[in-house]
Amino acid sequence: MDPVTLNVVADRYLRLALEEDITSEDVSCACVMPDARRGVVDLIAKGPGVICGLDVFGRVFSLLDRQSQVERLVGEGDEVESGELVAHVSGDVRALLSGERTALNYLQRMSGIATHTRRMVRALEGTHATLVDTRKTTPCMRVFEKEAVRTGGGTNHRYNLSDGVMLKDNHIDAAGGIAPAVAAARVRAPFVRKVEVEVESLDQVREALDAGADIIMLDNMDLDRMRQAVDMIAGRAQTEASGNVDLESVHAVAECGVDFISCGALTHSSPILDLSMKHLRVEEEA
Amino acid sequence: MDPVTLNVVADRYLRLALEEDITSEDVSCACVMPDARRGVVDLIAKGPGVICGLDVFGRVFSLLDRQSQVERLVGEGDEVESGELVAHVSGDVRALLSGERTALNYLQRMSGIATHTRRMVRALEGTHATLVDTRKTTPCMRVFEKEAVRTGGGTNHRYNLSDGVMLKDNHIDAAGGIAPAVAAARVRAPFVRKVEVEVESLDQVREALDAGADIIMLDNMDLDRMRQAVDMIAGRAQTEASGNVDLESVHAVAECGVDFISCGALTHSSPILDLSMKHLRVEEEA
Amino acid sequence: MDPVTLNVVADRYLRLALEEDITSEDVSCACVMPDARRGVVDLIAKGPGVICGLDVFGRVFSLLDRQSQVERLVGEGDEVESGELVAHVSGDVRALLSGERTALNYLQRMSGIATHTRRMVRALEGTHATLVDTRKTTPCMRVFEKEAVRTGGGTNHRYNLSDGVMLKDNHIDAAGGIAPAVAAARVRAPFVRKVEVEVESLDQVREALDAGADIIMLDNMDLDRMRQAVDMIAGRAQTEASGNVDLESVHAVAECGVDFISCGALTHSSPILDLSMKHLRVEEEA
Amino acid sequence: MDPVTLNVVADRYLRLALEEDITSEDVSCACVMPDARRGVVDLIAKGPGVICGLDVFGRVFSLLDRQSQVERLVGEGDEVESGELVAHVSGDVRALLSGERTALNYLQRMSGIATHTRRMVRALEGTHATLVDTRKTTPCMRVFEKEAVRTGGGTNHRYNLSDGVMLKDNHIDAAGGIAPAVAAARVRAPFVRKVEVEVESLDQVREALDAGADIIMLDNMDLDRMRQAVDMIAGRAQTEASGNVDLESVHAVAECGVDFISCGALTHSSPILDLSMKHLRVEEEA
Amino acid sequence: MDPVTLNVVADRYLRLALEEDITSEDVSCACVMPDARRGVVDLIAKGPGVICGLDVFGRVFSLLDRQSQVERLVGEGDEVESGELVAHVSGDVRALLSGERTALNYLQRMSGIATHTRRMVRALEGTHATLVDTRKTTPCMRVFEKEAVRTGGGTNHRYNLSDGVMLKDNHIDAAGGIAPAVAAARVRAPFVRKVEVEVESLDQVREALDAGADIIMLDNMDLDRMRQAVDMIAGRAQTEASGNVDLESVHAVAECGVDFISCGALTHSSPILDLSMKHLRVEEEA
Amino acid sequence: MDPVTLNVVADRYLRLALEEDITSEDVSCACVMPDARRGVVDLIAKGPGVICGLDVFGRVFSLLDRQSQVERLVGEGDEVESGELVAHVSGDVRALLSGERTALNYLQRMSGIATHTRRMVRALEGTHATLVDTRKTTPCMRVFEKEAVRTGGGTNHRYNLSDGVMLKDNHIDAAGGIAPAVAAARVRAPFVRKVEVEVESLDQVREALDAGADIIMLDNMDLDRMRQAVDMIAGRAQTEASGNVDLESVHAVAECGVDFISCGALTHSSPILDLSMKHLRVEEEA
Repeated sequence: MDPVTLNVVADRYLRLALEEDITSEDVSCACVMPDARRGVVDLIAKGPGVICGLDVFGRVFSLLDRQSQVERLVGEGDEVESGELVAHVSGDVRALLSGERTALNYLQRMSGIATHTRRMVRALEGTHATLVDTRKTTPCMRVFEKEAVRTGGGTNHRYNLSDGVMLKDNHIDAAGGIAPAVAAARVRAPFVRKVEVEVESLDQVREALDAGADIIMLDNMDLDRMRQAVDMIAGRAQTEASGNVDLESVHAVAECGVDFISCGALTHSSPILDLSMKHLRVEEEA
Repeated sequence: MDPVTLNVVADRYLRLALEEDITSEDVSCACVMPDARRGVVDLIAKGPGVICGLDVFGRVFSLLDRQSQVERLVGEGDEVESGELVAHVSGDVRALLSGERTALNYLQRMSGIATHTRRMVRALEGTHATLVDTRKTTPCMRVFEKEAVRTGGGTNHRYNLSDGVMLKDNHIDAAGGIAPAVAAARVRAPFVRKVEVEVESLDQVREALDAGADIIMLDNMDLDRMRQAVDMIAGRAQTEASGNVDLESVHAVAECGVDFISCGALTHSSPILDLSMKHLRVEEEA
Repeated sequence: MDPVTLNVVADRYLRLALEEDITSEDVSCACVMPDARRGVVDLIAKGPGVICGLDVFGRVFSLLDRQSQVERLVGEGDEVESGELVAHVSGDVRALLSGERTALNYLQRMSGIATHTRRMVRALEGTHATLVDTRKTTPCMRVFEKEAVRTGGGTNHRYNLSDGVMLKDNHIDAAGGIAPAVAAARVRAPFVRKVEVEVESLDQVREALDAGADIIMLDNMDLDRMRQAVDMIAGRAQTEASGNVDLESVHAVAECGVDFISCGALTHSSPILDLSMKHLRVEEEA
Repeated sequence: MDPVTLNVVADRYLRLALEEDITSEDVSCACVMPDARRGVVDLIAKGPGVICGLDVFGRVFSLLDRQSQVERLVGEGDEVESGELVAHVSGDVRALLSGERTALNYLQRMSGIATHTRRMVRALEGTHATLVDTRKTTPCMRVFEKEAVRTGGGTNHRYNLSDGVMLKDNHIDAAGGIAPAVAAARVRAPFVRKVEVEVESLDQVREALDAGADIIMLDNMDLDRMRQAVDMIAGRAQTEASGNVDLESVHAVAECGVDFISCGALTHSSPILDLSMKHLRVEEEA
Repeated sequence: MDPVTLNVVADRYLRLALEEDITSEDVSCACVMPDARRGVVDLIAKGPGVICGLDVFGRVFSLLDRQSQVERLVGEGDEVESGELVAHVSGDVRALLSGERTALNYLQRMSGIATHTRRMVRALEGTHATLVDTRKTTPCMRVFEKEAVRTGGGTNHRYNLSDGVMLKDNHIDAAGGIAPAVAAARVRAPFVRKVEVEVESLDQVREALDAGADIIMLDNMDLDRMRQAVDMIAGRAQTEASGNVDLESVHAVAECGVDFISCGALTHSSPILDLSMKHLRVEEEA
Repeated sequence: MDPVTLNVVADRYLRLALEEDITSEDVSCACVMPDARRGVVDLIAKGPGVICGLDVFGRVFSLLDRQSQVERLVGEGDEVESGELVAHVSGDVRALLSGERTALNYLQRMSGIATHTRRMVRALEGTHATLVDTRKTTPCMRVFEKEAVRTGGGTNHRYNLSDGVMLKDNHIDAAGGIAPAVAAARVRAPFVRKVEVEVESLDQVREALDAGADIIMLDNMDLDRMRQAVDMIAGRAQTEASGNVDLESVHAVAECGVDFISCGALTHSSPILDLSMKHLRVEEEA
């Protein structure tokens, strides 16, 4: 994660997460480690997967001890085996003990998403489709989860309601049809946004094309229907397939010729990658 | 979720989640629904599971439109079938459209955790063990995820580093053994906290007993060892089994006689329960 | 301003503005009005212009007294004459006195921008160009200033660095040219964003076209050059003219055939529209 | 701006302004500059005026990259010509690109106000009147705008409602006259505050004098009336002229003998001073 | 406390205080009162004193339950006997139980300060001196503690470093004497602030007079010296006595003829007034 | 105070306290010290007592000037005489002047509480009872006040409503008796919390014992009753005496044999320890 995003966006969440875990003091740590001591501890993978979130992981410790450091033995986005040593973390022992769980909670989740995404992206090899995420992210985790999708090899759909125009069934109903909805978006939305329309039938595909949609999302279509839709669109709009795509089905969906395949499960249902901090060595006092 | 927790604790996260999704305005909504209109929309389950988080779900809309309402057709903690109508949500259409994703992101995750927990609890039937959660929660989601565990039938372990004393391997090393670690905790920690010690061997069990631990956590022990540990403890401390427990293994673990079984996967790796808001009906203007 | 934007985005700024003006108490008001009394006061225009920001104006009072009300005699976006009565504001007299300056500071600035924009938009009549704003807004005022541009008849460019891709001279230098910059954006940026390139010469226009830019911003070109650029682009990209456009020059720029004309002065240098709250009538005590 | 004010007061606004411009990441920058590189860029004046806000400008970059530096070629409060090189800014290129607009938005506005103020102060030369600002500032910008007035050579009126007592028409009506209003202020307000009364007629001047006002504000009086008021007051209170003073009229107002002349336009309607960051040089990677 | 101060200033502290006491949920309350029930409870004085802070007390409950109400049997500033019933508080029982301690912590402290202040003010009867507070307040409690001083019959000195000019020994040293310090303040500080100088000797009194100080603070002078100082000043400046004034000494200090006597102990060392919430009656469920 | 608690918990309050005292700028300091100068100042005790809060005191200056330093001549928890030099504080003079009051307000209060606690602990010598604090703390000061109790030699009771189970009269009434209240707590509260029951009679003691309470709080019992209660409990639960304990009575209470004695006055009514910053030496400019 770049330092601007860390400073301006991520830190607010990291602080809140630390405040969630430390509301008065870390009692256990205060009992056994009342004074300042330097130490180093190992970060170890307990399962195979893609490491993602090392910047965020390190930042948690930096917020507790500015001198703390993470020496990486594995790069961001690298794949690790179970038992592999990922990094050494050094700093004030109290920061290491108190930040451990919060730092791991981020790292494990981001790595879990990157691992899941990597597998999906591999399943798309040989097709021209690009895997994208959705807004079905965990609250207060979007900036981390979307980075994990990129680290896994996917790309990002819109970030939020403010930075993309997506006209779904409810919007279309409210506007009285696809044509007026797209027309309203052309007038009202910043012209730098593409206009995307969600459709569920071939008739709607045609309406969206006639309305001049930039992107047409084919929602929950079966493969036959999707192929027909792609043929009908014929490059006049970008195409996105959406709806219950998984590791088994994603390749077949891609072969329908869509440009993008979005998958909510990347961010809402990836199991974590298990990681652990072990073998704390406390330095002798000076 | 009780109103005190909502007001004092949860709202801060809910607002942050809304701010994550709406950084300037909901562009799509602004295009198709420029004026105030009342509407109602259906909340529908798209898979079977336990509903959890309706208070939180409703609160998201209340933060956008104080007049919005959720009429529940299913109670908190009830099990639903795929396709079942869970609730009607009514209010300013702009609040319904703009709050939908954030409200669902909470509800889906809480319901997913409750569903997973319910299954684990069922697997424990016939034993005397109680299922508990851990601090392996998603950052900024703990208050929601721990409620979901309770709704699913589990109970909560300590909430955070400040409200429980847990002496793990690193603490024990830092203190120079189990006995001095427990002694330090008795002196320094508030006396209202029980002192829990994590052990990995029968020797450590004996040390923890001698030190007067209130709770002994048996970490990653095989079943034989765990049974021996429980026998050795013989009710002089509460016992907790920990480490890679899942739906297959949990019953056997419980039969070792432990009092509590903790399971991090409840909160870090439960897949969501899919839910959807459909069929928006916009009222005619007055 | 729609209620979702008010609740999720604007309120944070409004509260901060009130905290800026009231750090302990409103001393003058505490001296002369120690008790609760209802009152009503007139909002009067002291110059001709376009009224913009009545929702925001009213919200300031609502944050101080939930029962306060603004009865509008003039609609949002309407033009007023000097001396015209715009609204009656009623509520707890202490809220009226204490909120007056903050509420007016928003209303005056938003109305000033809307007034300036309206004049620019009128100067564009008969052309096909659309007037757009920029990110040259007053810090912490963007959501209000961009709304004022829309109320004046302009439309919005991207909201911020996160929701639009604009490759300027420094980005192009960093990437090593327009082609690699656009290519990097196609790979890395969310596909729902159009890619805009800023160019200063006809050679750069050609490079941008070849690179497949969605929007080409013609920066500080003279009219001849701009006409040539528009001819060269020939509809293969959207075109935006930028740089020191004002009321005198804007029509001629538009006649070069560009699609959009951006104008930073709308938000950074519009004089305010003078408005005043006068004639407070305090109700007799019950 | 002194470091205490920066730390305690200004940073909160600067962070909010950065959050306004970067809600997830700086997409354009992320595309062309994915890695850490040092760079330097020029800050150039694009019009003549008074430079104000260099501390604030530099702080924006410091918040993104603690190592960033501003090497000043022009001092705070100095006058520059169009095209003059004002400073070199160096640091992580990503901080330079992402902070540019926010830093300039502050610097341009503060410099515009300082420039306007300097002109007004020059017009007062040869009189004994002092130019002061008002609370007609841009919301969330007061601490910056009032500093700009001082840098331009003006001085500050009260900062906000909490730190000055000003009894205006509405307060006087509420209290039932000038005498009871001043009396109430003497009893209730902290005794370290001077009591200022706004008057519109000579009769009110006399009332204010009799009531013992410390400062009498002559609101919207014509020059004859103002001279009479100053004569009548004869040094028994400080005098302030208020209302629609501009560059043309300010000298004549001062010659009426008032002590202070307040001018809202300094902060609400000064055009910005145009400044630009140009010529980014990216250092070779080590 | 007026509603503007409550909304703009106090609520931020009240919320923080509630967050300090409820970091996840009120566990005890959740155990015994899982559902919504209305109840009423008595607020009882457990010692004699002046009641102060009922608005703040009630606001704590309102933040937890908007429908909660405080029915007052005793007015703000009234004196109560030990055992006297002060108010009935009604609302959701969970709000009553969870808000009790926080609400009482404010009320007890404010009442303790008001009680102490009232005694000091009584001791000043027959003199013309006014009792004022200082900035020696408890952090994050100033707005409450200064209100308590007013309720007790004292008045407020400056609120903070930003709204009063006080030149103490360290400032005078830094400026190189009283004369240059006052001169600097006349040029740099807003003219609406009086300039106060702290002096410790009669020589300094003369310097302060010559420099034109508005207020002269006589710091830690014995009574003889103080009388001489007051004589020397002879009404040309306001006078303030400061330093270790207590109930025994305050009358004698006043008889020296000073205008104001400041007393830090009012806010930093008043014992609380003991109050208790008793006799909860839970309504039958509807 | 350990660095984790400072970073995660305390800083938020310290910043708020600084914002309370500096809402725009430190005017006096800006007048006499417009430029950066290094200086050093003495911290001196003005009364005898226990020093507590030096980390917090130093942190206030660090938040204003990262280079500031506190050289300690007296250790945390040490006893000082009146007039004793406690520390030298060095840094930017503006930080020293502007932070002085806020830093002292914390240090004085924490030292006052530590001093009071130390006296109470001494009075307990020769008994086996432990002195504990309560939740009767000053709002927003709990983390500081509870540390002061520990520094004085006391220990902490629960921190807040979320991290301890205490069933008081109102909870017992709500649950319908001690037995159902304790039973509910066993089911619903995290099992790591001890369950404490407040009792007022010997009958209630027996009920609490039968219900299996972990801790029994003997509230406002006379000494005879308390001795009987301790006898009846006979080590089957921990015992806590509560209610109006002071320096005179505490030893006799302890001799009743209770394990813990809680005392609210430690945190709500300790007078401060007077401390002062004197003798500022400003370094010559380089």
